[in-house]
Amino acid sequence: MSQSDHPRELVAQARRVRDLLRVSDGMMAKATRASGPIPVDPRSTPGLPGDVPGGAPAKAWSKDEVARLGVLLAAHQERLFATAAAGAGNQRVLLVLQALDCGGKDGTVRSIGGVMDPLGLHIRAFGAPSAVERSHHFLWRISRAMPPAGYVGVFNRSHYEDVLVARVRSLVPRKVWQRRYDEINCFEEAEAANGTMLIKVLLHISYEEQRDRLLSRLDDPTKRWKFDPGDLDDRARWHDYQVAYADVLKRCSKSHAPWYVVPADRKWYRNWAVANLLVAHFHEMGLTYPEVDLDVDSLKARLADGSAVAHPDNGGGRAKKNAK
Amino acid sequence: MSQSDHPRELVAQARRVRDLLRVSDGMMAKATRASGPIPVDPRSTPGLPGDVPGGAPAKAWSKDEVARLGVLLAAHQERLFATAAAGAGNQRVLLVLQALDCGGKDGTVRSIGGVMDPLGLHIRAFGAPSAVERSHHFLWRISRAMPPAGYVGVFNRSHYEDVLVARVRSLVPRKVWQRRYDEINCFEEAEAANGTMLIKVLLHISYEEQRDRLLSRLDDPTKRWKFDPGDLDDRARWHDYQVAYADVLKRCSKSHAPWYVVPADRKWYRNWAVANLLVAHFHEMGLTYPEVDLDVDSLKARLADGSAVAHPDNGGGRAKKNAK
Repeated sequence: MSQSDHPRELVAQARRVRDLLRVSDGMMAKATRASGPIPVDPRSTPGLPGDVPGGAPAKAWSKDEVARLGVLLAAHQERLFATAAAGAGNQRVLLVLQALDCGGKDGTVRSIGGVMDPLGLHIRAFGAPSAVERSHHFLWRISRAMPPAGYVGVFNRSHYEDVLVARVRSLVPRKVWQRRYDEINCFEEAEAANGTMLIKVLLHISYEEQRDRLLSRLDDPTKRWKFDPGDLDDRARWHDYQVAYADVLKRCSKSHAPWYVVPADRKWYRNWAVANLLVAHFHEMGLTYPEVDLDVDSLKARLADGSAVAHPDNGGGRAKKNAK
Repeated sequence: MSQSDHPRELVAQARRVRDLLRVSDGMMAKATRASGPIPVDPRSTPGLPGDVPGGAPAKAWSKDEVARLGVLLAAHQERLFATAAAGAGNQRVLLVLQALDCGGKDGTVRSIGGVMDPLGLHIRAFGAPSAVERSHHFLWRISRAMPPAGYVGVFNRSHYEDVLVARVRSLVPRKVWQRRYDEINCFEEAEAANGTMLIKVLLHISYEEQRDRLLSRLDDPTKRWKFDPGDLDDRARWHDYQVAYADVLKRCSKSHAPWYVVPADRKWYRNWAVANLLVAHFHEMGLTYPEVDLDVDSLKARLADGSAVAHPDNGGGRAKKNAK
């Protein structure tokens, strides 16, 4: 067992990654003309241990590490679920994933979701709103999709599209999207106060990496169905999206609902980093198994001498609490 | 690569398992006083290869086999999703899991869900209906929870509770639950005609195995929250539940929506068997990747000379199809 197998080591590492990726005024102030509005290098690997091999071995390393972090995550998940099931708490987790096309949202869900308990996941994807959804306030469909207490929600796109695509493509008047930042902050603050641990992640890819990934979708007949020619129109507005994302990061990263920028050109780093962010936040929640008030001895006695009651015509008993 | 790595071998095996576990009039006619109403031995392992080691190694063997079947399942899942995404088909899969308490529904979802693509899963659990749900027809909440086209739904309990607990505990008059079998058959036939591949599985455990599992929940403080004293009341009605399940199997197993009885005392066999049932049904669907009508050359050209458009003040382009 290597040193980093130890949960304490894993948690310390997760906190380092979290601190490095967390959006702050200081981070955003570093933006230059060369960096673009989001001053994070999409090919960088903040917090990565120094001894990770480069190239193909890095992928295998990352997969193993994510699996190890996943063991921690699944354990936290069970305590989260147990706490809610026992009526001992109202907590839930919500991971919000945002990215430009090909940014790796699906791949991230596959990586993280694959090592967590599928029963406790509440994954929701937000496409273009339906006619009914458009007739409501933009947060209407979001509220309905929030994870119940005890669950880990994952939003594949989110309410932030309403200040990203809606802004860049002028789908609503400026006055409307401008007030949405405050509306989002109020909504998230209320959710946090109600027990939701919010973790918001921008998977940040470079213009060049997006080109390569779009090309590979065109080249592979089994990937071509993912290619939407409309994505090229969004690609043509690359800079506008960077500006819109930078405003989201500046205006909507709060202590109760922080934003993280995860460099995402290297998929194996991206998966590892997001797993670490989840571990750090789960650890912060300090979940335990609920105390359950059961008369264990008398229940055991009932089980021990219960073999006879399996016979026909031997029913009875109180109404079950979850019976209709 | 061993022989059974070959997809054709895996599919042949999956079909054998399916044929062995499928409910038929012949199967149900074998019921005797000794077997009880469901003539399947909960400790048996139908279809298991002869060379599987017993004891603890069987668990490791099963985990590896489920992972290998999972590779096939994830590939089918992607084709299912791609077909729906491209508007080329309306198919979906629904795995219905029923069992008495401790029958292993959660563990089965964890096993199968863990090797499939979390993005394409649509897992829904049905507890006691809420006041609003009770005010509707019993299939109302079921319809709303059906997987969308392209998804694999998993029901952890289902509409069958309305002819199981509702019958055994007399939650509704006999006249009401009696007509529900036909209502379920009509509902499922319509769903099948609309592209839903239905796979219904009873995880069949023995009375003794349930006792052991309930005891282990009481013994382990991290499992105690799962213990519901009301489960003992259901346990006292064991025989009534067996009769009610047998009627479900006899009346609601149709070619478009078959029932399977999976012996579930051995968890490793249960997981392996359910993975095989899914593979057999997916294979029957014969899914392929959709043909996509794209002008690949001109799209590649747009991508190749598109580096300039990333600059500020260089927007334009048509409205994206999934824009608001």
